[in-house]
Amino acid sequence: MTSPRSAESTPRRSFWGWGNEDGGLDEAEREALKMMMGARLGVTELTELAIPRLEDVRLPEPRFAAPSSLVAVLSQDRYERAAHTYGKAFRDIVRGLEGDFTSAPDAVALPKDEEELRRVLAFCEERSLAAIPYGGGSSVVGGVEARVDGRFGGAVSIDLRFFNRVLEVDVTSRAARIQGGMLGPALEEALRPHGLSLRHYPQSFEFSSLGGWIATRAGGHYATLHTHIDDFVESVRVVTPSGVLATRRFPGSGAGPAPERLFLGSEGALGVITEAWMRLQQRPRFRASATARFVDFRHGAEAARQIVQAGLHPQNCRLLDGGEALNTGAGDGSRSLLLLGFESADHGLDAAMERALSIARGFGGEVKEGTGSTRETGEGARDGDAGTWRTMFLKGPYLRDALTRLGMIVETFETAVTWDRFEAFHAAVLDATTRAATEVAGTAVVTSRLTHVYPDGAAPYFTVIAPGKASGRVAQWDEIKIAATEAILAHGGTVTHHHAVGRDHRPFYDRERPDLFASALGAAKTALDPRGIMNPGVLL
Amino acid sequence: MTSPRSAESTPRRSFWGWGNEDGGLDEAEREALKMMMGARLGVTELTELAIPRLEDVRLPEPRFAAPSSLVAVLSQDRYERAAHTYGKAFRDIVRGLEGDFTSAPDAVALPKDEEELRRVLAFCEERSLAAIPYGGGSSVVGGVEARVDGRFGGAVSIDLRFFNRVLEVDVTSRAARIQGGMLGPALEEALRPHGLSLRHYPQSFEFSSLGGWIATRAGGHYATLHTHIDDFVESVRVVTPSGVLATRRFPGSGAGPAPERLFLGSEGALGVITEAWMRLQQRPRFRASATARFVDFRHGAEAARQIVQAGLHPQNCRLLDGGEALNTGAGDGSRSLLLLGFESADHGLDAAMERALSIARGFGGEVKEGTGSTRETGEGARDGDAGTWRTMFLKGPYLRDALTRLGMIVETFETAVTWDRFEAFHAAVLDATTRAATEVAGTAVVTSRLTHVYPDGAAPYFTVIAPGKASGRVAQWDEIKIAATEAILAHGGTVTHHHAVGRDHRPFYDRERPDLFASALGAAKTALDPRGIMNPGVLL
Repeated sequence: MTSPRSAESTPRRSFWGWGNEDGGLDEAEREALKMMMGARLGVTELTELAIPRLEDVRLPEPRFAAPSSLVAVLSQDRYERAAHTYGKAFRDIVRGLEGDFTSAPDAVALPKDEEELRRVLAFCEERSLAAIPYGGGSSVVGGVEARVDGRFGGAVSIDLRFFNRVLEVDVTSRAARIQGGMLGPALEEALRPHGLSLRHYPQSFEFSSLGGWIATRAGGHYATLHTHIDDFVESVRVVTPSGVLATRRFPGSGAGPAPERLFLGSEGALGVITEAWMRLQQRPRFRASATARFVDFRHGAEAARQIVQAGLHPQNCRLLDGGEALNTGAGDGSRSLLLLGFESADHGLDAAMERALSIARGFGGEVKEGTGSTRETGEGARDGDAGTWRTMFLKGPYLRDALTRLGMIVETFETAVTWDRFEAFHAAVLDATTRAATEVAGTAVVTSRLTHVYPDGAAPYFTVIAPGKASGRVAQWDEIKIAATEAILAHGGTVTHHHAVGRDHRPFYDRERPDLFASALGAAKTALDPRGIMNPGVLL
Repeated sequence: MTSPRSAESTPRRSFWGWGNEDGGLDEAEREALKMMMGARLGVTELTELAIPRLEDVRLPEPRFAAPSSLVAVLSQDRYERAAHTYGKAFRDIVRGLEGDFTSAPDAVALPKDEEELRRVLAFCEERSLAAIPYGGGSSVVGGVEARVDGRFGGAVSIDLRFFNRVLEVDVTSRAARIQGGMLGPALEEALRPHGLSLRHYPQSFEFSSLGGWIATRAGGHYATLHTHIDDFVESVRVVTPSGVLATRRFPGSGAGPAPERLFLGSEGALGVITEAWMRLQQRPRFRASATARFVDFRHGAEAARQIVQAGLHPQNCRLLDGGEALNTGAGDGSRSLLLLGFESADHGLDAAMERALSIARGFGGEVKEGTGSTRETGEGARDGDAGTWRTMFLKGPYLRDALTRLGMIVETFETAVTWDRFEAFHAAVLDATTRAATEVAGTAVVTSRLTHVYPDGAAPYFTVIAPGKASGRVAQWDEIKIAATEAILAHGGTVTHHHAVGRDHRPFYDRERPDLFASALGAAKTALDPRGIMNPGVLL
């Protein structure tokens, strides 16, 4: 039986892959992708796996029944449990396609307000159940998976889909109070009539939530300056097992350690983020974008460093290596491509763009003709290059699912490192990843880009595509990922720039994080979550 | 007996007031100030208090003797103890002038390295002594004062003056590893040969330390964008009673709650910040500055809001009200003054300045002729307006001391509030402060400025000058401050934007801070400082 609450979400989300059940690539697109990737990897035999049917998947019996006081809130519906089993990593899609839903939560909570949420947490405390906050479910690090240890009598996935409103808009301060479960498109839609925008576009934009962005320190639209959601958070409201914690709304404060910062990156381990006051932007009116080609990645990276150190603050400053440019149809694979974009609601951008392009040329960059000048766009209009990029970018997860169905290993990982180490770091990580992938799969395409750049370093992002062996693709990927992450740690990078820690990065995070900080964070968690029910296994 | 270590600091710092013993205003300057302030307040009889002599002050006997293992590190010298009794608030200067040094620490530790520091902390733990980190000693909120309760057998002020070196410079990433005890001028001097600068200029710049800036989330040079030291911290190294905690150096990371953020604003309550990797700037080559006059503060504030919301990022965007402009000799008192400055190491600033001035004109701003165009400055050169302002700004604490010697009540306080509340907030705080000061002192001058502006709000700063009664000036000020802070809290402001909490703001901070955050922070403290010796009384 489908619970009445879950039925409110239409079209229904795919329970095994990205997007809605009616989404994804159509057959012609999948066929084209198959030809293209087959040729690229030299693989002739690619058989497409069927998508799993809900009635066929392995789903354990729930370990408890919903108490009468929570029957309206807790769903134990087969669809809901399957759909809340995984995030959206490659490992998740593979297991989903294989019909393996053995780590499904015993129930999915769909609270309508904080009072219901509070009762769900109290129930979890009482019965020793793991409480796992679930926003858009787009985690690629095992952040929403009920992989919990034996001390728990079960797990409840807490879906925030009903916390989906903009509660207040302060046009003067350009800020809004927004509920944590609101997904990207609805959030932007609600702000549009006010001429405002959060302008936070992670790749998961369509199916990720404000609360999730905050809990995972998501990286978004801005390539420089404000790259993480962190800087847009004015205050947060968090429901913890110990009660509600609401920070005050200030543009800035020096009163002790910033309380909201404890919850940025808290990954559901400290409580559920139900609301936040967010800093907004006026919708841009002026845009300038340009593309520069470089003989190699190193020259492009030097240009990007110089541009960001010059204080030019481009919104887009994405460097694609040759393979990455080829993947996205933006080059022939021989050159690295720097995508530059400036935007403003207030003023033209010619001076900044000219200076940025002059820096790019200084490193041998060939600027694509006809690009670079400021264009004034009507409300909602979007320039060609940026639009194409964005469409392709948002399509990424669908492509990934289609490739996974073709038996590929296809996954990404990301990091950040200071510029002094960048060149050696990038070479070492690329090399370790390529070697591991080739060893595992026989052949592999490993490409990279810079997604965000800082005056003191960059965030490199890597994509691995390789033909997987028929079974055990999760283990095959894990082997590659371990090799990649060991190289990252050995050469001074962080285990994650914006994908978060979750359960998958835990062993590496434990090595990166200072031990005493773990003690301090663990003690703080105990104060807020004395019985340790909140998303156990992530962070701590 | 003077310890050999303390003698290394020459010229010696004043033990009761700002700066060095040979610093401060000369007699002619003090006489001019007396005439000016007397006229301004209508007070004819102003008698100057003599400065205290070290041999006359009331200093209690130390409650313990330095153990043999620490005789080289712990000084119980009269000068050192007196000089480490207070920060540099008005309340501190008054008590210093009155010879009241009853809360002096029993000893001053002058560790040369982390090993000595570790031994000092172990001694404090063993003997139940409060351990109070001391950088430049510029706290204006009671942050370094040994006002500790009966459970302690005494107090040790831990002076970081020997942690005074730049240890590494990474020119590629524009960052440096700097010791926590380094004061502003020495730090800039050490970075200059590399063409780099931290560009953090709080008013205390001459006599405040990097570790202190980090521990108090100091506000500096930048009026917009990066206003707090926070954004320049790449990593920190902290010696806690539980051991050393060192965070890794990354340009950005999404791996859990940012560990360094716990120590930003930690005010010495979690440990001693011995080192930090700091993000640096290239020394500016281009500067543009301009001044615009407005009929009132409200119009100036609207212009400032619009400029910062336009994403123009001026380095200086300081709005002075009429009285403030008069105080600093920059106006006749009838108009509000907006000081605008842009700077860059890379490019001219005409477009940004033109746009900012056009916004200012839109709110009736009259732009001072001959200002606004970009000038290229030689290394170390500084343009006229900014230079004058900076000189005056850094002179502030000396003027304050001189006025305090004249029996004045003279103090500042600061806050931040979102724009939607700004107008009512500013009026209410100004009114409450003026009424309280007039009640206490008969007459008073209360002026205000905006020191930092954000897209979502501003940081107003207030200065109170009033003729104090002969005795009890600390209590007189406290009465004014309580009235001001009650108005701040009632109208949605923070208890401090960049002065920190210390002991003086504690009762108000306790009301501002979410209770559950206090629990979490307290638990984190216990993990790092299990016996609670670190700067007890601040924050928690």
